[in-house]
Amino acid sequence: MSTFREDGAAALDWVASYLENVRDYPVMARVEPGEIRAALPASPPDAPEPFSAVLRDLDEILMPGMTHWQSPRYFAYFATTAAEPGILAEILIAGLNQVGILWRASPALQELEEVTLDWLRQLLGLPEPLHGHLEDTASSGLITALAAARAAAPDRRVVVCSEHTHSSTTKAARLLELDVRVTPADDAYAMRPDLLDLGGACAVVATIGTTSSAAVDPVAAIADRAAEAGAWLHVDAAYAGAAAVCPELRHNFVGWERADSIGVNPHKWLFTPFDCSVFLCRRPDILRQVFSLVPEYQRVTEDVVSLSEYSSPLGRRFRALKLWATLRCFGREGLQSIIREHIRLAGLFERWVEGEPGWELCAPRHFSLVCFRKTGSDEENEEIMRRVNDSGEIFLSQTKLDGRLVLRLAIGNARTSEADVALAWDVLRREAAR
Amino acid sequence: MSTFREDGAAALDWVASYLENVRDYPVMARVEPGEIRAALPASPPDAPEPFSAVLRDLDEILMPGMTHWQSPRYFAYFATTAAEPGILAEILIAGLNQVGILWRASPALQELEEVTLDWLRQLLGLPEPLHGHLEDTASSGLITALAAARAAAPDRRVVVCSEHTHSSTTKAARLLELDVRVTPADDAYAMRPDLLDLGGACAVVATIGTTSSAAVDPVAAIADRAAEAGAWLHVDAAYAGAAAVCPELRHNFVGWERADSIGVNPHKWLFTPFDCSVFLCRRPDILRQVFSLVPEYQRVTEDVVSLSEYSSPLGRRFRALKLWATLRCFGREGLQSIIREHIRLAGLFERWVEGEPGWELCAPRHFSLVCFRKTGSDEENEEIMRRVNDSGEIFLSQTKLDGRLVLRLAIGNARTSEADVALAWDVLRREAAR
Repeated sequence: MSTFREDGAAALDWVASYLENVRDYPVMARVEPGEIRAALPASPPDAPEPFSAVLRDLDEILMPGMTHWQSPRYFAYFATTAAEPGILAEILIAGLNQVGILWRASPALQELEEVTLDWLRQLLGLPEPLHGHLEDTASSGLITALAAARAAAPDRRVVVCSEHTHSSTTKAARLLELDVRVTPADDAYAMRPDLLDLGGACAVVATIGTTSSAAVDPVAAIADRAAEAGAWLHVDAAYAGAAAVCPELRHNFVGWERADSIGVNPHKWLFTPFDCSVFLCRRPDILRQVFSLVPEYQRVTEDVVSLSEYSSPLGRRFRALKLWATLRCFGREGLQSIIREHIRLAGLFERWVEGEPGWELCAPRHFSLVCFRKTGSDEENEEIMRRVNDSGEIFLSQTKLDGRLVLRLAIGNARTSEADVALAWDVLRREAAR
Repeated sequence: MSTFREDGAAALDWVASYLENVRDYPVMARVEPGEIRAALPASPPDAPEPFSAVLRDLDEILMPGMTHWQSPRYFAYFATTAAEPGILAEILIAGLNQVGILWRASPALQELEEVTLDWLRQLLGLPEPLHGHLEDTASSGLITALAAARAAAPDRRVVVCSEHTHSSTTKAARLLELDVRVTPADDAYAMRPDLLDLGGACAVVATIGTTSSAAVDPVAAIADRAAEAGAWLHVDAAYAGAAAVCPELRHNFVGWERADSIGVNPHKWLFTPFDCSVFLCRRPDILRQVFSLVPEYQRVTEDVVSLSEYSSPLGRRFRALKLWATLRCFGREGLQSIIREHIRLAGLFERWVEGEPGWELCAPRHFSLVCFRKTGSDEENEEIMRRVNDSGEIFLSQTKLDGRLVLRLAIGNARTSEADVALAWDVLRREAAR
């Protein structure tokens, strides 16, 4: 145990130093495919090695292969943060090693998850009663939602979404052998409810904050149509759901309280280490119909429904502890102030692009994602992005809107400052001018 | 950051002290349903709280609701260990917060996972080439396997298993709308290959180490039949797969090298913190056919297949780091010596039961699980188990074999000593005599 305390102090010091210096790393990994693999031993050791050897190889072999999601200069995909409370909670989660296969296997795990998810419901301004549980990713949440939708309307095999719905809907539909019907989007990349065709549909997936451009589907209108058609409404708010913590942003969320299920990822914009994906549901009875199965070796005498009866995995990590720690150590006000600052920074960047000749904005901005491009060809924009990412100073990613390549600046790291965003703009203009 | 270092030291000290004293806690939680929930605040705080408040409430509110999976006196379900190397690795995983949505998002994550899974393949004595990746649980692995099986034979909708196959097979089949056909088991609770009916079957699930009694299905004979029928063979070795690290135990695994896919859970008997479930596959092309879907916003220029193309979730944790650390810090010899000791202890306990009038063994023992009962009624055995678990000294669980209630002593915690097993036997006899 003295070794554990010493090794633990070294691991903790490693992480603390990493976070102190993370701004200085090249943001995107600069290795070629296979390079890390080739540097690792091809076979496991026969004799035990000290943990210090793991830390040494982390520095010497693995670090060049990291893309620094913790960097305040990470602006790709959706930027995230594993903030300190969640990191500390992960130490406890691993040490306790609770495995929530059923209530009695860890009453604390199950009941903390229930309470923490209700805290989140309150923070998001959603009405009760609302069942909530944690999953690993929104991809799994889509499977849960569509499986429930299919069970609620077994003779209908169509899932309706928009052309900007995340690919996890199509992937889940494929797994569940449902057909996907794509509804066109409007000029703001939001689903057009007037073109919704819910014939034969068991589910419709609306998005608040699409992956491409953080567009907001008109959830209230879609909820009306879903109710008429008896289709399950799932609202994917994986990224933007966090913004509902701020009352002044709730106009983007009108109607989501009528959804049958909602996905929100605290590992995206609520400063919780990956993985931590929230699944909220107004019809938990349908989830149990699909997912509850209690064999003899799990039978217990307590009259209590285990959380494993609401989704696929039997075992569950004590993920609730990191979300609970995060919500407590930031508090409602702390969460609000970072989200507001991110939106302010995105607004700043948006105005810089707008005011610069030769650059253009490409989508309305609702949250902390800015879609923009250099006027010119896709090739030119792709080349700018390549140069910018190769510089190591910042990291951003692309999408396609109206068939054109568009650059995305996603602000979501809790350590991102105005200087970091200004740097991003400097680097972009510098590389575009070369 | 000084707060992070201080809070981290406190969290680490908390875990170190916990592990030093874990033998002294009542193993099974002694709370009533709802008790933990009622003790927690009903609403989240507005203002930030210090992390010390989280640690305080962990002690004061949550700890009575923990069932101590880390206790060497935990003998229920399958006993597990989050050993020190994996706990330390979790600190690094959380601090780095790599999110492996695609290769370039973390080349180190992807390539370490590939290398570590190949290390495990070698440790288990399996031939290459064999694709490997990590999932959260064996339940998810069953979905992956059966989805692949369905894709490989789309006109067949039956999954064949035995009456002792884990419920996750039925749960996955339900999700995938496949029918389950149950093959009877023999007197040793192993699947009877002479009664296998693979007509219309896309998959057969064989188990090495069933959940009820750790029975071993005759995989070689089943593999012959699966090959003839063109059915996908999945081998569920979630618990017992670890035993293949010891060459003298590989006679239990004959034929598994011919499986299309295999599941092994390092979070069960390879001393890795939950969750860490290995999925091995000889036909990764079929996995990609089912699970690969790369939209524009994930497109990259590198010619490399991302691990997310082999299963459902898009995002993946840096789980490989904890398995890598565990394999290195134990080494092949370290893993072997603990597994051998667990099997020795199970053999001891088995002989004690065998030699005691009024007690009987209920299933052949292959690994570290002993199935036994007091001669007498189910009610009597259930009452003994209830008293034993309520004593807090040890924790075990039950199953049904041949319609009778049977007690299970599962040895799998790395800290379990002969004295702990002797205590279990003392407590059982004491409570039976009351």
